[in-house]
Amino acid sequence: MSEPIEVVFLGTGGGVPSARRFLPAMALRRGGEWFLFDAGEGVQMRIRQSPLGWAGLRAIFISHLHGDHVLGLPGLLMSIGMAKMEAPLEVFAPRGLQRLIDTVLQVCRVQLPFPVTVRCLENESATILRGSGYRIDAAPLRHRAPCWGFFFREDERPGRFFPEKAQALGVPAGPLYKELQSGRVVELPDGVVVRPADVMGPDRPGRVVAYCTDTLPCRETVQYSLGADLLIHDTTFGEGLEDEARISGHSTAAQAAEIARAAGARRLALTHISARYDADAPLLESARQVFPNSVMAADLLRLSVDAQEA
Amino acid sequence: MSEPIEVVFLGTGGGVPSARRFLPAMALRRGGEWFLFDAGEGVQMRIRQSPLGWAGLRAIFISHLHGDHVLGLPGLLMSIGMAKMEAPLEVFAPRGLQRLIDTVLQVCRVQLPFPVTVRCLENESATILRGSGYRIDAAPLRHRAPCWGFFFREDERPGRFFPEKAQALGVPAGPLYKELQSGRVVELPDGVVVRPADVMGPDRPGRVVAYCTDTLPCRETVQYSLGADLLIHDTTFGEGLEDEARISGHSTAAQAAEIARAAGARRLALTHISARYDADAPLLESARQVFPNSVMAADLLRLSVDAQEA
Repeated sequence: MSEPIEVVFLGTGGGVPSARRFLPAMALRRGGEWFLFDAGEGVQMRIRQSPLGWAGLRAIFISHLHGDHVLGLPGLLMSIGMAKMEAPLEVFAPRGLQRLIDTVLQVCRVQLPFPVTVRCLENESATILRGSGYRIDAAPLRHRAPCWGFFFREDERPGRFFPEKAQALGVPAGPLYKELQSGRVVELPDGVVVRPADVMGPDRPGRVVAYCTDTLPCRETVQYSLGADLLIHDTTFGEGLEDEARISGHSTAAQAAEIARAAGARRLALTHISARYDADAPLLESARQVFPNSVMAADLLRLSVDAQEA
Repeated sequence: MSEPIEVVFLGTGGGVPSARRFLPAMALRRGGEWFLFDAGEGVQMRIRQSPLGWAGLRAIFISHLHGDHVLGLPGLLMSIGMAKMEAPLEVFAPRGLQRLIDTVLQVCRVQLPFPVTVRCLENESATILRGSGYRIDAAPLRHRAPCWGFFFREDERPGRFFPEKAQALGVPAGPLYKELQSGRVVELPDGVVVRPADVMGPDRPGRVVAYCTDTLPCRETVQYSLGADLLIHDTTFGEGLEDEARISGHSTAAQAAEIARAAGARRLALTHISARYDADAPLLESARQVFPNSVMAADLLRLSVDAQEA
């Protein structure tokens, strides 16, 4: 069994909020841990309106230092502090964030009860965090400011187990099954040696969730999102505003869908929606014409990322 | 006729938000202008959920530099800038705010399209802004950090006009009524001189709205809120948490009500409610036992401040 992975959208607007879309923020939960991608203003309110709790927050990733992606961070840190959490927190962000955090804490005279380590994102793409059964990569996107995409990659999972093959080889149902599933060779009482490969399919790829906003459509996004189970992509604009998208370093719904198709993603979630759009349908239809498995993100929407069965 | 005055609560929590109470912020509208008192995180979202628009925002008042009262300000300024507003904006706040604003704008590389003037609140109580028909006073409260209360005071309004007195003196209904109501002496064709005092009652007091949070119960609040039409007061805690209130520089519901009673206020609104309180009833009942005309503030609640008829 693989750990459930769930994405919780906390803010799905861009630039300025609308009455129903707060500013960019998204959580990814796996097992008892969760990660926060961007921290737009209001993120702590949305967290309180969601099932997320402070205890499992492992790290925060800030794509870039535009106000709409980062101004919820100081309040978030202060509220975590007021909840008396003491676990160290890592924040990955472009250069400049440390100064913002330090100034706000000084002016507001706050001393956090937990250590915050700000790690600067560099130009190169790199694995920036490794955990038990996954890693998180960062890669530069194409925006008006230095901006990174984040790629959650689960480790490969063992292949499917075929009990009928095990039975045929004389392995009794019970603890030995688990040994084989865990990758260990088993010797039966009659001396027969059974290897995991004898009873299991090939390793299965781990799940991949790609978070790419803010960005123009670009080949880097395709390259790093190849085969993603869920691609979350900048969709600031709809049809007819391609020029605005290009000038401001953003994408349209159709462009996001083209990236998803080129990457062979399984599912696309449209986010960073301009406050000018009251209705979802035009953006969503525009994306679905190119990539049918598209969904519109919404504040507090939760999406399960299911393992793909081989 | 007097201009309508309306208070719009934008954030009624304190310290940390709850799912339904954002952080401190309150608007006061009079005619086409409005004023913002405190700017907790999420204030720009609540403004978008309210009938307020950027165009009439005249000035912002920050009571003190604790994070819950000020961290919505940078995002608010940026969003006003993105709406291409160009009117100058004054922000009244304790020393330190300029550094916070400057650092955030620099790190996020934002140049606002309108001038922001930060005016430092000093220790003394003073009139800090005068407009057409009103003034706003600031006075120090008692909190853990330097903190000011704000007092919106309408000018005295002319007394009630009695048309029957005017008729008895031979003033014909029409433009001369308006002259008298405007305070001008009128000479009739037959040489009779009529003075405003002949046909009008005494001047009526202007409306007063007092905004007092965060604070311990103190005599300064009473002194500056005397006869207030609406007193908005710190109510972080309820019965049984008097010690916590004292230690943290806050008030309980009963203490807020005692201040309202001592000041002879007409109405009390309880705000800055701790996130620990799910239900309003215990706090409200505790206040009403002391001061019956108490209401519980709620995010997006609007209260009219009616003129008191003499």
